[in-house]
Amino acid sequence: MLTAEIICVGTELLMGQVLNTNEQFIASRLTMAGIALNYSSVVGDNPQRLKDTLLRAKDRSDIIIMTGGLGPTDDDLTKETVAQVFNKKLVFHPECMEKMALYLKDAGRNMTKNNEKQAYLPEECIVIENDNGTAPGCIIEEGGKAAIMLPGPPREMMPMFNVTVFPYLKEKSGVVLYSRVLRLFGIGESRAAAMCDDLIKNQSNPTIAPYAKEGEVTFRITASAECEEEAKLLVDEKCSKMYEILGEYIYGEGDENSLANVVVQALREKNLTVATCESCTGGLIGKMITNVSGSSEVYGFGFVTYANEAKMQLVGVKGETLKKYGAVSEETAREMARGARLVSGSDIGVSVTGIAGPGGGSKEKPVGLVYIGVSDKHGCDVFRFVQHGDRERVRNKSALCALDIIRRRIQNG
Amino acid sequence: MLTAEIICVGTELLMGQVLNTNEQFIASRLTMAGIALNYSSVVGDNPQRLKDTLLRAKDRSDIIIMTGGLGPTDDDLTKETVAQVFNKKLVFHPECMEKMALYLKDAGRNMTKNNEKQAYLPEECIVIENDNGTAPGCIIEEGGKAAIMLPGPPREMMPMFNVTVFPYLKEKSGVVLYSRVLRLFGIGESRAAAMCDDLIKNQSNPTIAPYAKEGEVTFRITASAECEEEAKLLVDEKCSKMYEILGEYIYGEGDENSLANVVVQALREKNLTVATCESCTGGLIGKMITNVSGSSEVYGFGFVTYANEAKMQLVGVKGETLKKYGAVSEETAREMARGARLVSGSDIGVSVTGIAGPGGGSKEKPVGLVYIGVSDKHGCDVFRFVQHGDRERVRNKSALCALDIIRRRIQNG
Repeated sequence: MLTAEIICVGTELLMGQVLNTNEQFIASRLTMAGIALNYSSVVGDNPQRLKDTLLRAKDRSDIIIMTGGLGPTDDDLTKETVAQVFNKKLVFHPECMEKMALYLKDAGRNMTKNNEKQAYLPEECIVIENDNGTAPGCIIEEGGKAAIMLPGPPREMMPMFNVTVFPYLKEKSGVVLYSRVLRLFGIGESRAAAMCDDLIKNQSNPTIAPYAKEGEVTFRITASAECEEEAKLLVDEKCSKMYEILGEYIYGEGDENSLANVVVQALREKNLTVATCESCTGGLIGKMITNVSGSSEVYGFGFVTYANEAKMQLVGVKGETLKKYGAVSEETAREMARGARLVSGSDIGVSVTGIAGPGGGSKEKPVGLVYIGVSDKHGCDVFRFVQHGDRERVRNKSALCALDIIRRRIQNG
Repeated sequence: MLTAEIICVGTELLMGQVLNTNEQFIASRLTMAGIALNYSSVVGDNPQRLKDTLLRAKDRSDIIIMTGGLGPTDDDLTKETVAQVFNKKLVFHPECMEKMALYLKDAGRNMTKNNEKQAYLPEECIVIENDNGTAPGCIIEEGGKAAIMLPGPPREMMPMFNVTVFPYLKEKSGVVLYSRVLRLFGIGESRAAAMCDDLIKNQSNPTIAPYAKEGEVTFRITASAECEEEAKLLVDEKCSKMYEILGEYIYGEGDENSLANVVVQALREKNLTVATCESCTGGLIGKMITNVSGSSEVYGFGFVTYANEAKMQLVGVKGETLKKYGAVSEETAREMARGARLVSGSDIGVSVTGIAGPGGGSKEKPVGLVYIGVSDKHGCDVFRFVQHGDRERVRNKSALCALDIIRRRIQNG
């Protein structure tokens, strides 16, 4: 398997002024191309440190992908340093100069003397045209190693990568990778990993990579093979075993999927609508549902009943209930869910009431205590949680729990 | 000046599954602490490559900050590798085990055999407690070098960094830096930078660092001096000049501040309440307001009127208005804002109706078209926007615009 290394050049990255999104973008494409990324690093605009990093990269990796340091100013040193390490001369590319002149004219800007520097590229390189900026990129090869240079701004880099670099990498790699991502909710990473310990311990091809993020756990199962069918077969077989063990927690698959998306699709399939009644989540469940394009088919009404008066006035929670049990109680959650369903005429009503903190907790009702109610024509259930973490986390996990409760309700209904 | 190096450990980063936000967070804090970050790198969960990277880092940098690889599974190797490189034994920390047990109990999860591994830390280390997860962090020192290990999930890492690591670094560095962060809304980065071009061009101490993120622009003004008073004086002087130029757009100050926070504080000060009525933002404004602890004093009622029926039934938008002008129109936004205010008995009503996309656009009403209404006892105003970007961006910018409209209304009212 070919190995790659990313080097992002720019003092602004080391100062923390800019989030390095290029790294993730390139890393994910390398994975798709079946090339192993072993290292990624950031170096400032410092010639000696850049040279050291490059020499090491050339020594240990087949492909070096660099972003940044192709600008017109004196502290942009990527090409100069790469040319030195790869023993190439920089030569003037008149066609790059022309392209740059056109670009600047379109942008209503003038060519400066500095820009001329950007038309110098290593001899015998493959030029990568830049439609969104002045700096052209390039690929140079020497002794089976390749160095790919791209500008730093993502809106310039990404199209150049997609058009020229990705096809180049895929051809070079010749390996086919296939992967599936299983998404779990309601179980922690360590417990999930422990449950399929045997599968994880004995992994080689496919590999199983667990990852936990904001209340969710994902497993990426990836196989490499000579053709996609073969890789797919390996992955599918492993996934079947994981479904046997963890099926209850797996709500969906795919990198871009979300619990809200799965809930909206499930509601659509069953032709059902849902209404929300949110106290401590303050609109977050509604926001998550409406993140999904087309959610208007299944979601029309939401109530943010942050105040007790809102709970009574909008969804008919009884004053007596609030007085006797409090706003954060099973009984209130029940009346909220039922009220939201009936007032809106939706098929399902879901409610959340809890103490998000940091204030408002007591011994009997601590911060993190949350009741989630779900109501449909068959009846109403209320679930009690004690969520851990700060205000944002309590709210986020509560909203996800509410979505998962809807998902399970639809699945089992 | 002390030098530092960041090493982020995790195959998920090299696979491109996760955006590395830790790097920028730590990099910016190092800058604030007056420590020079010369290198930052990402390594997978591979013992040999991690060891090589660590040896090199130990050789060339004073402080190594690592994130990730502290999890309960066998592929989490950071502590083991660091201990080896720094010649330390891993010893069992019963107090960490207890803390973990409490955390898991609160989270309603069970301790697994795997978790025990997380309570082993290098001998003679400074333990960094983790309130938001199972993995404790630690600092070890040897021969004037320090290695700091933190868990990978940002929600766990960031508070641990702020509470323990940042003070540790500041003390080690000895340089006094003082900075203020001005937060702007309603203006782009390049225009804001152009407006104070003279100040930025002539910067040395203080430095002025602009940064744009999700519809907001911030300027961080930082001075270094021998004592805090002196640095503060330099920064305050520069900030006064920036307020003269950009004052209209500056809604607040500080790293942790937000538009929602400023709005909630302003409402509290004036003893006012607000109600929301959201169509395309689907609860996002309510969510942003209720992010702020204590928002219940100023926010009690929210309506998510995603469907036309909800707009009519909940806040009294006239069927005639919807028919004649459509749901996305100045008139509907007006009736929504007014209705939300009157139905809830709040002082201010704010409404959003628009086309978030990707579907639903037309030539007359393109994707991104959003009307925001604000109603109080003096009357109702509606503002029209055409937001650019994808669905998430349109929704986010619209919610922020609504908050800014409330802020200006209170300020001028």
